[in-house]
Amino acid sequence: MDPEDLNIPPMKDLTIDNITENTVVINSQGSDQRLTYVMERLVSHLHDFARETRLSTTEWMAALNFLVKVGQISTDVRHEFILLSDILGLSLLVDAIDHPKPPTSTEGSVLGPFHTHDPPVIDNGSSMSSDPEGEPCLVVCTILDQSGKPISDVKIDIWETDSTGHYDVQYSDLQSPDGRCVMKSDEKGVFWFKAIVPVPYPIPHDGPVGQLLKLLKRHPWRPAHMHFMFEKKGWDHLITALYMRNDPYETSDAVFGVKQSLIVDFTTADAETAKKYGVQEGTKLLKHDFVLVSEEETEKLRDENALKALKALGIKVKLIDHLPVPDLD
Amino acid sequence: MDPEDLNIPPMKDLTIDNITENTVVINSQGSDQRLTYVMERLVSHLHDFARETRLSTTEWMAALNFLVKVGQISTDVRHEFILLSDILGLSLLVDAIDHPKPPTSTEGSVLGPFHTHDPPVIDNGSSMSSDPEGEPCLVVCTILDQSGKPISDVKIDIWETDSTGHYDVQYSDLQSPDGRCVMKSDEKGVFWFKAIVPVPYPIPHDGPVGQLLKLLKRHPWRPAHMHFMFEKKGWDHLITALYMRNDPYETSDAVFGVKQSLIVDFTTADAETAKKYGVQEGTKLLKHDFVLVSEEETEKLRDENALKALKALGIKVKLIDHLPVPDLD
Repeated sequence: MDPEDLNIPPMKDLTIDNITENTVVINSQGSDQRLTYVMERLVSHLHDFARETRLSTTEWMAALNFLVKVGQISTDVRHEFILLSDILGLSLLVDAIDHPKPPTSTEGSVLGPFHTHDPPVIDNGSSMSSDPEGEPCLVVCTILDQSGKPISDVKIDIWETDSTGHYDVQYSDLQSPDGRCVMKSDEKGVFWFKAIVPVPYPIPHDGPVGQLLKLLKRHPWRPAHMHFMFEKKGWDHLITALYMRNDPYETSDAVFGVKQSLIVDFTTADAETAKKYGVQEGTKLLKHDFVLVSEEETEKLRDENALKALKALGIKVKLIDHLPVPDLD
Repeated sequence: MDPEDLNIPPMKDLTIDNITENTVVINSQGSDQRLTYVMERLVSHLHDFARETRLSTTEWMAALNFLVKVGQISTDVRHEFILLSDILGLSLLVDAIDHPKPPTSTEGSVLGPFHTHDPPVIDNGSSMSSDPEGEPCLVVCTILDQSGKPISDVKIDIWETDSTGHYDVQYSDLQSPDGRCVMKSDEKGVFWFKAIVPVPYPIPHDGPVGQLLKLLKRHPWRPAHMHFMFEKKGWDHLITALYMRNDPYETSDAVFGVKQSLIVDFTTADAETAKKYGVQEGTKLLKHDFVLVSEEETEKLRDENALKALKALGIKVKLIDHLPVPDLD
């Protein structure tokens, strides 16, 4: 690039007081308005953070070294940056912004770092866990729209730990996926499967995120839960989880995922249910209805929320592809 | 940890509007007031960034994947996170906060990602570059205090690229350090050495930081410069660089390091100088005085700046180890 072609003010003698505006200017040369806006907000907050803390060189270097470690421990199956985002409350926040839910629908929860893309596809009635130490349970669910009509043909990802609180991918000698599956809802919106009763477990805390939690005197535990993810064209992608009532970590989830509406009770299968689903009488039973929202309604709600929130902040924006950019007109 | 022992409000049903205060509370259980304050500011800015951009799940995931890549390309000799901090203006800002300079002293500049800890120690008159393609130069410097008195026995790190614009550590077949050295100032505060005339060069742009620059339509170039770092007990650590006047990238340095007071002119050695320093007449010559500030004066200035800046922001603080924490008294 010929420096003569640059259309920016001279970047020289930058100080605590003018570095931000200059960085914003040099980052604003492209035509992608959304990228320009996101970078402007990022740089402003990053610099304000340093200015308001009077961040020292030693702290800055410690933070960069921490981030290097977070990156280097990450693998295809260990997403330490997702974990970091989770414990900082960012994951919950982004989900809440991007997937607003009308009161009549199922709320979202955090994705967490353990979702994978290669689980076995199973049919109604199959088991998704092979752990003989786990307490067997039967899970019977229906997917509905907000008017109570069943939604068929939804792709459902389900994942949970084994009875020791570990996901399959946490075992280095893993042969094949376990404790996870993909299902499709039938014409009545139903999907049902056999699993094990979830247990509380600590998020991986042998890495940098664990060290940070320890420094902050925070425990790494998550209350017992089972993850669910729902996908169907025309319906808003729903990432959620069901939490077992009265878990000791119900009110101190390390990743802020618990919502009252997602706390469920396990009952036991009576004789009729046991016979119908081919399990032993007395087997732990979880019955739940999930309510999806159309993509159209979610987009409308997201747009309304965005415009309202930014107006309240005094930021004049317009939406491009449902995402705000400054309205300079 | 027994969840019964926790002294925090129930972390449940967290929303766009209450996730921040709750994350701050759970992060405030330790006794390290500085850590609590830094985390409070970090979480507040991180969440405000997401709220003000209405960050989408897709953008969030792209950002996390970007950070993973920044961590994974990093090695002992490739500090991609420093590079990221550099191009975002954060490095310059932190240096300006942590190393305030009175007007009579030498200004600081960015450390950059290429400083190493094992350069050869050389004596006055030695050469620190073996590149036969480089244009030889003689560098004669004095280190002074603000009253003009020489400072002896200062440890000086010096590093520059070769004539192709690459630091030694960028060569995978590097046998021993080149283009870098450590010196000591003599009793007259003088150090002098042979080097090559610096050339402009692009920062490493074959990784994620380079991709970001490209997205932002920014060039990766730095104007020609030579790095210097000064250390002596009782004196503020000075990280700086000297920039060659009229470099094509003088006003658009990719990492914002240039300051008017650090731009220098190369002259040529006359017969007397050539004889004195054992170089050929006409050899390029750089003469420069560096002025250090005492640690005591820097600390005083840093404290004053911090209290003044935070007062202006309406944040009531006290200083612990010269770093601000909220003053709750």
